[in-house]
Amino acid sequence: MAENGPLKVALLGAGVVGSQVARVLLAEGDTLESRVGRRLELVGIGVRREGIERAGIDSSLFTTDSMGLVTRGDIDVVIEVIGGIEPARSLVLAAMRSGASVITANKALLAQDMAKLSATANDNEVDLYYEAAVAGAIPIIRPLRESLVGDEIRAVMGIVNGTTNYILDKMTTASLSFEEALQQAQDLGFAEADPTADVEGHDAAAKAAILAGLAFHTDVRQSDVFCEGITSVTADDIAAADAMGCVVKLLAITKLTNDDEPRVIVKVHPTMVPKTHPLASVSGAFNAIFVDSRDAGQLMFLGAGAGGAPTASAVMGDVVTAARNRLRGSAAHVQTGYMKREVAPIGDATARYYISFDVEDRPGVLAACATVFARHNVSLQTVQQSYLEGLERRDGFAARLGVMTHEASETDLAGVLAELAEASFVGTGVNYMRVEGS
Amino acid sequence: MAENGPLKVALLGAGVVGSQVARVLLAEGDTLESRVGRRLELVGIGVRREGIERAGIDSSLFTTDSMGLVTRGDIDVVIEVIGGIEPARSLVLAAMRSGASVITANKALLAQDMAKLSATANDNEVDLYYEAAVAGAIPIIRPLRESLVGDEIRAVMGIVNGTTNYILDKMTTASLSFEEALQQAQDLGFAEADPTADVEGHDAAAKAAILAGLAFHTDVRQSDVFCEGITSVTADDIAAADAMGCVVKLLAITKLTNDDEPRVIVKVHPTMVPKTHPLASVSGAFNAIFVDSRDAGQLMFLGAGAGGAPTASAVMGDVVTAARNRLRGSAAHVQTGYMKREVAPIGDATARYYISFDVEDRPGVLAACATVFARHNVSLQTVQQSYLEGLERRDGFAARLGVMTHEASETDLAGVLAELAEASFVGTGVNYMRVEGS
Repeated sequence: MAENGPLKVALLGAGVVGSQVARVLLAEGDTLESRVGRRLELVGIGVRREGIERAGIDSSLFTTDSMGLVTRGDIDVVIEVIGGIEPARSLVLAAMRSGASVITANKALLAQDMAKLSATANDNEVDLYYEAAVAGAIPIIRPLRESLVGDEIRAVMGIVNGTTNYILDKMTTASLSFEEALQQAQDLGFAEADPTADVEGHDAAAKAAILAGLAFHTDVRQSDVFCEGITSVTADDIAAADAMGCVVKLLAITKLTNDDEPRVIVKVHPTMVPKTHPLASVSGAFNAIFVDSRDAGQLMFLGAGAGGAPTASAVMGDVVTAARNRLRGSAAHVQTGYMKREVAPIGDATARYYISFDVEDRPGVLAACATVFARHNVSLQTVQQSYLEGLERRDGFAARLGVMTHEASETDLAGVLAELAEASFVGTGVNYMRVEGS
Repeated sequence: MAENGPLKVALLGAGVVGSQVARVLLAEGDTLESRVGRRLELVGIGVRREGIERAGIDSSLFTTDSMGLVTRGDIDVVIEVIGGIEPARSLVLAAMRSGASVITANKALLAQDMAKLSATANDNEVDLYYEAAVAGAIPIIRPLRESLVGDEIRAVMGIVNGTTNYILDKMTTASLSFEEALQQAQDLGFAEADPTADVEGHDAAAKAAILAGLAFHTDVRQSDVFCEGITSVTADDIAAADAMGCVVKLLAITKLTNDDEPRVIVKVHPTMVPKTHPLASVSGAFNAIFVDSRDAGQLMFLGAGAGGAPTASAVMGDVVTAARNRLRGSAAHVQTGYMKREVAPIGDATARYYISFDVEDRPGVLAACATVFARHNVSLQTVQQSYLEGLERRDGFAARLGVMTHEASETDLAGVLAELAEASFVGTGVNYMRVEGS
C-alpha cells in the first residue's frame, strides 16, 4: 500500500452478498476509516458478465477481468463472494500470491481446499479470513480459531442451514408435510427453486467440514462428511420425536472417537434433540452453533445464518480486521491441520437411536426383539409398546415398539436393523433416527 | 524472546482462576506448543503472601515480588487474575511498558482505566486482551472487537451476572423469596458470603461499561453506569411479570439515544423481558449476551459466565492468540475510544415501563390516571384493572391498575410517578419496572 494512501480493496462477485458489501464499503467510508485508521478504497468489482448495474455503484468499478484485478499488485484486500470452486479458487490463490489478504464466504471452496488455502496464506504472510462461510453473521470461526484455542473442544453441533431448519420447524409447529413446508419456504424466499443443496444436507456438510477442521486442528473435507438430508423425514418421525420429548433438527455434528488416537467423527443428519437442549428452541430460519469444551463447558451462538446484510456484516468484520493487520505490517495466524487426525468411517460413529417397528402381538416377541439388540451390543434405555387398530394394522402386526437405545455404534445399529428386517415377527418399514444432546 | 526459545509467561494471582490457568499451562504444554508454534514456559507466579502451595505446581515458581517478575524484561505474556484496582493496575502498566503483552480478567480495572490501558498497549506495541473479563468463557469481547467491527451495533443486552440470574430464576420457577433464593445460591457456592457486588448490580455495571465502550467505540467507565440491583425485587413483581408474559432478569443494557449526535445509554437494572425473547430462557447461573446490529441483525451468545475452568478457557484463548502474534512480531489492534461520545444522563434513557398501583373504585378515576400519564407524554399500551378483596384492600382502595406504557424517557416516567404519589385517588406503594426487548 502507498504511504498514508488508502488501502485498496477488490470485490469479486456482485450478487446478494456482494452488493451489500459494496454498499457498506461505499456508504460507510468515514466510519470504516475511523475504525481501521486508514481509508478503504473499493477499486474494482470483478463480475462474470459485462453490463452489470447496481444502484449507487459507479459502473466504471465493474470489470470482467477478475484475474487482472486481483493480480495488479497493489491490492491490499480481496473479498471473494462468488461461491463455487472455479474460478473462485484460482482467483483467491492468485490474490494471495500477489500479496493481498483474502476474505471469503466460500464454504464449498474452503471445505475442499482448506489445506492449500491456509498454506498459501501463511507462505505469503497474508490474512485468510472466512467468518461468513459458516452460519452467516454468527461469529463462530473467530471464536473457534482464537477464543477457544487454549481449550479442548469435545463436540460441535450446529443448525447451520436455515432452509432446513425452517422446514422442520414448520413440520413441527404447523403440522405441515415436508412438501408443504418446502413449498412455503420457497414462497417466502427461504428455499431456492432447486432446493437440493439445502434439503439433501450438502450445504450443511461443507460447513461441518470447516467446523470439524477448526475444532480438531486437522484437515477435513466435505467428502469426508457423512451426509443425510431431510427429504425422508415424515410427519410420523416428528410425532414420534415429540412423544419422546424431542424435536427433529438437521444437525452438523463433529466430535472425537474414544480411541487412544482419537479420530474425527463428522456427519450431517436429521437428529432427535431433547426439548431441554438449547438447540431445540432455535426456530425459523435461524442458525445456532453449540460447542462443548473441556474448560469452557457448554456454549451456544445464535443468529441469522444467511441473507445479504448479515453475511456482509461478517465479511466486513473480517475486512476491517485484515486492514488493521495490514497497517501493522502483520497477518494473523492461519490455522493449519497440524494434528493429522484421521476421519473415522461412519460405522465407528456412536449415537443414541430411536427405532420404531411393528411386531406381532404374542408372548415372546418382546424378548425376541431384545435378543436382537443384545446380540449386536446395543443396550436399550426405554421400550414403549402401543397397540395398533383398524387401518394401522398391516399384515397382522398388531403392536408397535418404540425403542430408545443407549449410545451405540452405527455398525452395531446396522446389524440390528438388518436382523429386524429379516425377522418374521417384525413388520416391514423399520424406522430409526439418531438422537444427540443429553 | 530468545531465538527459538520458549515464550515466557508470568502469572499474577493463584486463586480460583489463577490455579486453573497454571494447571492448563503446566499440563497442556505439548498441546499449547503445537497451537502456538513455540513452547510456553510459565516462569513465575506472583502472589501476595509467602508460603502458597498448590498441588502440581513447583513451589519455586511462586514469588511475592510481582513487580520484579513483570519488569524483568524477558517476559512475553503477563496474565493478570488478581482482580481489583491496585496492585493490578501498576503491575499491568509496568508489564506493558516492559514489553510484555497482557491478558487480564480484571473487569473493575478495565471499567475504570480502559483508555489508559489501551493507550499503553498501543504505545508499547503489545497486546491487551481481556475476553475473560465479561461473561467468563463466552466469546463476546473478540466478536465485538473484530467480528462486528464492520457493522453498526444498535444495542447490547446481557445477563452478565450468574448469581443474580440464579436468584431471579429460583424466584420465578420455585416461587422463592429473594432472601430464600439468595440463601440457596450461597449454599450452592453461586453467591459469596457478602453478595453485595452481585445483588446490587456493581459487578454487572463494570461489565456494562466494558461492553458499551466496545460496542460504541468510546470511553465508558463504571461510574457512568446507572445501576439498580435486585434486592427490592419481590414475589409480586415476578408474578406481575408472569401475568404480562414476561420474566424478570437483571440486564446490563447499552444503546444509543436518537439524537443527531447519539449519546450512550448504559444501565443495569431488573428488567421485564418478554418470554419470547431469547434472553428470557437463559436459566440458572448461565450468562448470555444479546446483540442487535444494523446488518447482522439479532445475535445471542450463551454459556458459563464464571468459575475457574471456564474463565481459564477464555484466558488461555487470549494467551495463545497473543503468543502467536508475538511470534509474528506483531500485536493486534487495541481499540481506543476514538468516538468521544457522551454518556447520556439516565433521565434521557428510554424504555417501556410496567407500573402498578391501587386506586379508588369510582367513576372518573381511570380517566384521571390517564390524564396524569398524558401530561408527562407517556402513552399507554395496555391498562388492566383488577378488583381487590378482603386483606388486599388497603385504606379503601378497591382496585389495582397495571399499566404497560409505550417507550418513554426516565424523566417523563419520574414525572408520572411523582404525580401519582401525590394523587388522592391513588394508594401508597406505586410499583414500576422497566421493560426491554420486543
